[in-house]
Amino acid sequence: MRVIASRTPGFVGADLANIVNEAALLAARKDKESVEMADIEEAIDRVIAGLEKKRRLMSKKEKEIVAFHESGHAIVASLLPNADPVRRISIIPRGISALGYTLQLPTEDRYLMTKTELQDRMAVLLGGRVAEEITFGEISTGAHNDLQRATDIATSMVKEFGMSEKLGYVTFEKEKKPLFLPSSLLSSREYSEDTAKQIDEEVKKIIDETYRKAKEILTAKKEELGELARLLLEKEVVEEADLKKILQSSASNPI
Amino acid sequence: MRVIASRTPGFVGADLANIVNEAALLAARKDKESVEMADIEEAIDRVIAGLEKKRRLMSKKEKEIVAFHESGHAIVASLLPNADPVRRISIIPRGISALGYTLQLPTEDRYLMTKTELQDRMAVLLGGRVAEEITFGEISTGAHNDLQRATDIATSMVKEFGMSEKLGYVTFEKEKKPLFLPSSLLSSREYSEDTAKQIDEEVKKIIDETYRKAKEILTAKKEELGELARLLLEKEVVEEADLKKILQSSASNPI
Amino acid sequence: MRVIASRTPGFVGADLANIVNEAALLAARKDKESVEMADIEEAIDRVIAGLEKKRRLMSKKEKEIVAFHESGHAIVASLLPNADPVRRISIIPRGISALGYTLQLPTEDRYLMTKTELQDRMAVLLGGRVAEEITFGEISTGAHNDLQRATDIATSMVKEFGMSEKLGYVTFEKEKKPLFLPSSLLSSREYSEDTAKQIDEEVKKIIDETYRKAKEILTAKKEELGELARLLLEKEVVEEADLKKILQSSASNPI
Amino acid sequence: MRVIASRTPGFVGADLANIVNEAALLAARKDKESVEMADIEEAIDRVIAGLEKKRRLMSKKEKEIVAFHESGHAIVASLLPNADPVRRISIIPRGISALGYTLQLPTEDRYLMTKTELQDRMAVLLGGRVAEEITFGEISTGAHNDLQRATDIATSMVKEFGMSEKLGYVTFEKEKKPLFLPSSLLSSREYSEDTAKQIDEEVKKIIDETYRKAKEILTAKKEELGELARLLLEKEVVEEADLKKILQSSASNPI
Amino acid sequence: MRVIASRTPGFVGADLANIVNEAALLAARKDKESVEMADIEEAIDRVIAGLEKKRRLMSKKEKEIVAFHESGHAIVASLLPNADPVRRISIIPRGISALGYTLQLPTEDRYLMTKTELQDRMAVLLGGRVAEEITFGEISTGAHNDLQRATDIATSMVKEFGMSEKLGYVTFEKEKKPLFLPSSLLSSREYSEDTAKQIDEEVKKIIDETYRKAKEILTAKKEELGELARLLLEKEVVEEADLKKILQSSASNPI
Amino acid sequence: MRVIASRTPGFVGADLANIVNEAALLAARKDKESVEMADIEEAIDRVIAGLEKKRRLMSKKEKEIVAFHESGHAIVASLLPNADPVRRISIIPRGISALGYTLQLPTEDRYLMTKTELQDRMAVLLGGRVAEEITFGEISTGAHNDLQRATDIATSMVKEFGMSEKLGYVTFEKEKKPLFLPSSLLSSREYSEDTAKQIDEEVKKIIDETYRKAKEILTAKKEELGELARLLLEKEVVEEADLKKILQSSASNPI
Repeated sequence: MRVIASRTPGFVGADLANIVNEAALLAARKDKESVEMADIEEAIDRVIAGLEKKRRLMSKKEKEIVAFHESGHAIVASLLPNADPVRRISIIPRGISALGYTLQLPTEDRYLMTKTELQDRMAVLLGGRVAEEITFGEISTGAHNDLQRATDIATSMVKEFGMSEKLGYVTFEKEKKPLFLPSSLLSSREYSEDTAKQIDEEVKKIIDETYRKAKEILTAKKEELGELARLLLEKEVVEEADLKKILQSSASNPI
Repeated sequence: MRVIASRTPGFVGADLANIVNEAALLAARKDKESVEMADIEEAIDRVIAGLEKKRRLMSKKEKEIVAFHESGHAIVASLLPNADPVRRISIIPRGISALGYTLQLPTEDRYLMTKTELQDRMAVLLGGRVAEEITFGEISTGAHNDLQRATDIATSMVKEFGMSEKLGYVTFEKEKKPLFLPSSLLSSREYSEDTAKQIDEEVKKIIDETYRKAKEILTAKKEELGELARLLLEKEVVEEADLKKILQSSASNPI
Repeated sequence: MRVIASRTPGFVGADLANIVNEAALLAARKDKESVEMADIEEAIDRVIAGLEKKRRLMSKKEKEIVAFHESGHAIVASLLPNADPVRRISIIPRGISALGYTLQLPTEDRYLMTKTELQDRMAVLLGGRVAEEITFGEISTGAHNDLQRATDIATSMVKEFGMSEKLGYVTFEKEKKPLFLPSSLLSSREYSEDTAKQIDEEVKKIIDETYRKAKEILTAKKEELGELARLLLEKEVVEEADLKKILQSSASNPI
Repeated sequence: MRVIASRTPGFVGADLANIVNEAALLAARKDKESVEMADIEEAIDRVIAGLEKKRRLMSKKEKEIVAFHESGHAIVASLLPNADPVRRISIIPRGISALGYTLQLPTEDRYLMTKTELQDRMAVLLGGRVAEEITFGEISTGAHNDLQRATDIATSMVKEFGMSEKLGYVTFEKEKKPLFLPSSLLSSREYSEDTAKQIDEEVKKIIDETYRKAKEILTAKKEELGELARLLLEKEVVEEADLKKILQSSASNPI
Repeated sequence: MRVIASRTPGFVGADLANIVNEAALLAARKDKESVEMADIEEAIDRVIAGLEKKRRLMSKKEKEIVAFHESGHAIVASLLPNADPVRRISIIPRGISALGYTLQLPTEDRYLMTKTELQDRMAVLLGGRVAEEITFGEISTGAHNDLQRATDIATSMVKEFGMSEKLGYVTFEKEKKPLFLPSSLLSSREYSEDTAKQIDEEVKKIIDETYRKAKEILTAKKEELGELARLLLEKEVVEEADLKKILQSSASNPI
Repeated sequence: MRVIASRTPGFVGADLANIVNEAALLAARKDKESVEMADIEEAIDRVIAGLEKKRRLMSKKEKEIVAFHESGHAIVASLLPNADPVRRISIIPRGISALGYTLQLPTEDRYLMTKTELQDRMAVLLGGRVAEEITFGEISTGAHNDLQRATDIATSMVKEFGMSEKLGYVTFEKEKKPLFLPSSLLSSREYSEDTAKQIDEEVKKIIDETYRKAKEILTAKKEELGELARLLLEKEVVEEADLKKILQSSASNPI
């Protein structure tokens, strides 16, 4: 464990999961019955090599997009009352899939979340895409993962948490799933076409409203967005204090 | 057995099931062919550790939501003629998933239940969400499990028990399921879109009516709801006697 | 065999099937390769214990519902020309799932059944629910199995036997099923939505008409229904002769 | 082979298949790795016992229905120009599932069949049900298998043979199926709802027209139908010559 | 290899595939781990026996239908500019499933095919059915395989090759399929009902137009069709030269 | 590795993948447990033999189609500002499936792509089909793979990247797929018919617009298209410099 820890500074849980996954694939390719330390080390090497290559290969245009994208997340998170505070923003590629990240604390999963908290979490996710749109007048594939996670939250609000007035308090997912079976094989839709249409419409409505909210915030803070993105491009990592400085220097109040 | 019993005071069947489940996972991870006592003990340790951590980590806001939520269940259960009487209310996290609980007796499954009894059982389940709504003007993810169980009951009323006038006496589930096969794989819908739509509408109608009923009760008893929640926050556990005292002190009659 | 027979007096085929099922589960839990006599004996013990517990635990209200429910079956069966005659009515729980039963002879499966015979068999099944409704003005979950069986018959009339004028002589199920594969996995619907809708409507129409017929009979014989139910509650078992006496004492003719 | 042959006089291919099937089940229950002669002999015993029991147990009413049903098949087959000639009619239960049979020759499968030949084959199949209807004014479950086979032919005409004007020359089934996989698992419908509806309507139309044709024939030959059925009830087996005599004695021509 | 070759004169690839298939089944029945030469020889024997039996058993009517059917293929193929030229026509059953064949060269699969070439290939396939229709005023099951192949081509034109104006350049099949899994299990339709309807309509339109084209050709060449069919019935095999002679003797030009 | 490299000059990644695939099949046919060097060498032999045969067998017409098709890709790629520059065009069959190719650099996958870059990539893909259409007034099956890839990009734009205004920021695919399971088995559509219809319409709209764009470019550059295709037919391979010369000689500007 210590060896792995010492070799993966700054890696978070998901990165470690990715490494283990990669190691399992390597072991499988060698027909081993279990994953050995050698596989994990090879996996770490590959991941780090991948990160360095990625950092070298990203074009100036790509780095700019990432900087504005992450700044969008950070500013929306800072200005919404129910979002977790931002500790650090980075455009150093992290782990296997992220080109940059905005670290919010606490990262602990909450035991309960209110409807407002879920909406603010979605707004933070959509903030990246909004920042691209209002800055470049053009959007990229970089928001893919954010859109998926926002869709997942909105879908759960409608189908599991009874938070859509139109669908009411009915839930649309079975709780118990057999262990080890991929959930998608099991969730054969039982409800009617008509209900499916209402669910789709409600999910879209929730996402649209949240997008509008994130757009209002970032349009009002367009200057700070640019300032933060430029600082990021210069320093690659921006800490909480600098973010606060940028936001306080502006006269506008949280929205 | 005695060892397990002595280590799990206050655990109910579902908690024990969760422990066994956890132990099975632990044994599987160690490639054991069967679950050993060591796995069960480790599982118990984990569950208890989880409970303690949960108790420490829940925010004041979360505890308040749980207290009002449980009080909502308890007051609706006390005032509906066909609901089982409440013996204890607690906001000490219980087992792996519950943040609080309202204990009703008898817990025995009934051999027969009338339509009215099913409706009252649903009203008790929805009481938690209603209490959140009328107290905080805001709802949380905490009602997720209650909504699922109420949906299950309403769905069975319509699809299995012939209790919806619109669908009549036709049932919509096959009785015989092969052993050991996950039921969701098998319940491929055979009925028409039109029937599916009617079923969805009837389930929603039943849930909506029941929600209204729970809301009427808790709106009339808003004062008692607050009193009970405050007592719960102070003492963490409230017994039947104290609940009765709170309800009798009010002049209003059962609804 | 003799041991099993001597220990299960009054058990019918379905009860024995249940015992074998239970024994298989017990053997599986002990990782045995085959079911042994010891497992069967343990299964019998459990079933008998379950029966005794059930008998003790059923509430007065539940027993009343069961008595009227079984009386409903019996009276409809006695008054319909094409239903098999009733030999015994009982509210002693039988086997694992039944809370009471109405025994009709011959129990042998018929080689051919006419449309009228199928309709009368459905009316007898629905008679239990009708009796609950006209007696208590309230219905229970106890008719679940009856409704399923009536639905199965009506569905076969429409989909397999060409007995619905609207759907005509077309059948909607494939005859040959591979051995050992659960049939529900295979019966993926091939017909159109429109046909599915017509099938649903025809099944509902057949069930509704039959329910009306059973209701007419029991409304006309409400007095006899009460008399029979009261006799059942007193004696727990009523034989053919007593049933006939109750029905003959009334002046009304079979309907 | 000789042993089996000598023990199964009058059995046709399907009966032998049933016996082998039964023997396989018996062997499986005894955990044998292959089916032995002993299993086949036991299977033959069971089948023969079943036949004898069936013969003894069928009611007078059932025998009458079977006699008219088989006579319906035979007369339609005799009077349609493209149907295979009838060699024997019998109401002695044959094999495991049939209560009676009408033997047409050649039993060889044809290499090609014209549309008219398929229509006549369907009319013969539906003749059994028609005979029940016009004789008793009531229908039974006995036509189940005939209806399925007629539906299969009509469905193939529409979906495989391009014989429906409305659907035209498009086919709706894939030719190649992987070996050993149950076909029903694979025939996931690819065409649209609209096409499915047209297919259902065309199949129904074909069956309805054929039914009408069979009804015209048997209504015109109602007297001969009764004569043949009565002869069957008396002798249990009627040969070609007697059938011809009955039909020739009447003045009416083939329809 | 030489043994097999010497025993299967005139067999084409598909016939050999059938023989291998049959041999695999024989080996499987004998619980062999691999197919041995003995199995292949037995398979060849069976196939040849089948052919001889088929040849002997086909009725005069069937042979006539086959002759006109194959003549239809051959004449359409000869008169369409983009169809491969006909080398031989035969009504000697070939391999396991074909009752006759029309041999076109080159048999090599093309690397590219234009829309017109695909349409002509379909017209040749439909020519067999057209010949039956205009000769006998009646159609048979013999065109089954031709209709399937024409449907497959039309479906690929619409779904894979972007050759339908209505559906445009969108494709509707995934390219990558996992090895060894039956494709039908995987091609779960992803597109909407509306798109499915348009696809069905376009496929039907393409087939209908092509059928009309084949019918025009054969109606204009009805005399030659009869001449060729009669020659076929007499000689069983007709070579390219004789076909050309029949077509040249007529004054009409290719259509 | 060196052996393989020295034997596969000019092969790209996909070709090597094809060889490995072929080698695996060969090894599987010989019942080997793993792929050996001998299998890979045999696979290389087969692929090379296939290429040579293909080169010899392609007709003049096919070669012409391929030349115009590749020229279409190359000219659209050269004139769109966001497409990768063309390094080489070839009509020497490459690897197992391609009849020709247009090599664009960088071949590295991008980390981010903007909407405009995706649209230009699609236009390049569709350029091949457009060139066939405007040159021959006739289309071939050769664009199959291009159409699939363009459809895949358009589908991802709508379902994953939130790039369709109509569908908005909702995504329609689950991110996590179990390892080693074919994705198509899992992506059982969860959204409504109505949403599916909108997705289909948006995908078609995106493809149609891009096709129009590619057609505008190639119609304006029809002369250069012919010049390039003729050069290709003469030399089989055209390098970047010659392509530039052809395009610069014309007076028209990039569109």
